[in-house]
Amino acid sequence: MKINSLSEITHLISNELEQFNGLFKQSLKSKVGLVDLVTRYILKQKGKKVRPVLVLFSSKLAGGINERSYRGAKLVELLHTATLVHDDVVDNAETRRSFPSINAVWKNKVAVLMGDYLLARGLMLAVEGNDFDFLGVITNTVKRMSEGELLQISKTRKLDNDEETYFKIISDKTASLLTTCCEIGARAATNDEQKIAALKNYGENLGIAFQIRDDILDYIGTSKLFGKPLGGDIKEKKLTLPLIYALKNSSQNDSKQIIRLIRNGGKKLNVKDVIEFVQRNGGIVYAEKTSKDFAQKAIDSLKIFNESEVRSALESLVSFVVDRNS
Amino acid sequence: MKINSLSEITHLISNELEQFNGLFKQSLKSKVGLVDLVTRYILKQKGKKVRPVLVLFSSKLAGGINERSYRGAKLVELLHTATLVHDDVVDNAETRRSFPSINAVWKNKVAVLMGDYLLARGLMLAVEGNDFDFLGVITNTVKRMSEGELLQISKTRKLDNDEETYFKIISDKTASLLTTCCEIGARAATNDEQKIAALKNYGENLGIAFQIRDDILDYIGTSKLFGKPLGGDIKEKKLTLPLIYALKNSSQNDSKQIIRLIRNGGKKLNVKDVIEFVQRNGGIVYAEKTSKDFAQKAIDSLKIFNESEVRSALESLVSFVVDRNS
Repeated sequence: MKINSLSEITHLISNELEQFNGLFKQSLKSKVGLVDLVTRYILKQKGKKVRPVLVLFSSKLAGGINERSYRGAKLVELLHTATLVHDDVVDNAETRRSFPSINAVWKNKVAVLMGDYLLARGLMLAVEGNDFDFLGVITNTVKRMSEGELLQISKTRKLDNDEETYFKIISDKTASLLTTCCEIGARAATNDEQKIAALKNYGENLGIAFQIRDDILDYIGTSKLFGKPLGGDIKEKKLTLPLIYALKNSSQNDSKQIIRLIRNGGKKLNVKDVIEFVQRNGGIVYAEKTSKDFAQKAIDSLKIFNESEVRSALESLVSFVVDRNS
Repeated sequence: MKINSLSEITHLISNELEQFNGLFKQSLKSKVGLVDLVTRYILKQKGKKVRPVLVLFSSKLAGGINERSYRGAKLVELLHTATLVHDDVVDNAETRRSFPSINAVWKNKVAVLMGDYLLARGLMLAVEGNDFDFLGVITNTVKRMSEGELLQISKTRKLDNDEETYFKIISDKTASLLTTCCEIGARAATNDEQKIAALKNYGENLGIAFQIRDDILDYIGTSKLFGKPLGGDIKEKKLTLPLIYALKNSSQNDSKQIIRLIRNGGKKLNVKDVIEFVQRNGGIVYAEKTSKDFAQKAIDSLKIFNESEVRSALESLVSFVVDRNS
């Protein structure tokens, strides 16, 4: 079944999500006017809330949603928001979810400090709730996310990346947080390490499938009204799976020429040439297959749980992620 | 007695500091080449290590330096380093300790992510050591530091600050971390809440005295070879204690004129005019007196401890801070 929007999946927990939204809003309040102004701006943008959804579904599947699940959901959403705010500084991004980015409105200064503030607020929730298990998980995730992005930057600068490093980068920068969402949701509901491991496994494979899809969309996206423009990764000299595969599977001459084109950049670089090269050499097909393999692994991880509406919802979430076109 | 360098005070714990330096270096290692490169660059710069010194002395005074003291010292130095790296992005600073700043060498991108990485590494130390008391203290400090800086930014943009807000800003952005150093050092060595409170009090008052002195030096510094140039705060439209006092104690006409000068900025703004205005209206004398008042409070906080070489060292540290000329 083709899933067209996230709400087709999340209606099962619509009350819980509403409660989460209220709690999340409360947790962002500050006595400092500027902080309040920026957080209200962030709240207006209404993200998809994929991470809180993962926490809540994981709790529900592992035993039931409780107070700790909500705290975990707030924690991961605060952390995610903090990283988005910092990422827009890192990428010099002008917009986010079709709104001008924080750095565009208030400058890098405020964006860097707001990211730090949001991260600290998230960690404080865990401290206040005595969720020390969450703190261990989340601090390791912050480290992996920043390390993953730094590894990507250094590979980008050298225009040098292989499949093994690519998987390490996306596991650290993207999948780690989704794994953490599932782990936190599971730990909030159960002590059963087998269930926790299964949900972590689900999150890791979902995260990798998600990021590969994201990287594919840089090559095949069509109506990208609100997304990043086609070929953005190419212009930024980011070597992702479709291109890594194509470079390995074309003649040495061809791949050298493509690398030279990307390295020189500027006006001579027509991203269409690179996209065509990748298509001709099977890069898209290979990446799509790989993404589906990880999606299947994610679905298989849930087999230890009895069939249920919640398990089906998590399975549908996987299809939604790997089939999406934007 | 006039203290000319920090080493006159720290010789009491020189072995412990050496051990700290080795441990700190180890805790910065990473498998990601770029991370390792940047941390080695940071280590070359050899800061004064005021914060680890405070942790170690606080432990020594409260009962004795132990393994947890070293972990606390690493934690605060990692957090401090993270905030310096982010501050240089926030301030667009080109140099730090006479070296080009991280953002100048590797761009904002890397600096933002490295700050996040260093913060996460610090928190992980506390998680790994089961120092949950440290985590509570430190996450609240990260929140206060970013909130304090954001409050300063909003006051700066409006060119509007009063003494009460000034003290809130410097307590949050500067004193909170020094208080945390003393608290962590104390908690590592004792459960005696009276001793812990006394050392926290010492740190808070030391921190405020320190920041006021820093703000005075913007008006009276002479040989600032490696420091920030004279009048930097004025150019950045930061209203600190000397100016806040002078504005309140001059005629309405005079203060309006000075505010206009600062607001317009640019070539017409001669910082010497502002400095002279502040001196003429008693701003420097008042700020110096205030700084010494807080210094005295810091020294008085230690009275619950018996006289000892360590207590004397912490007292000397206060004098060093409020008498320094750079």
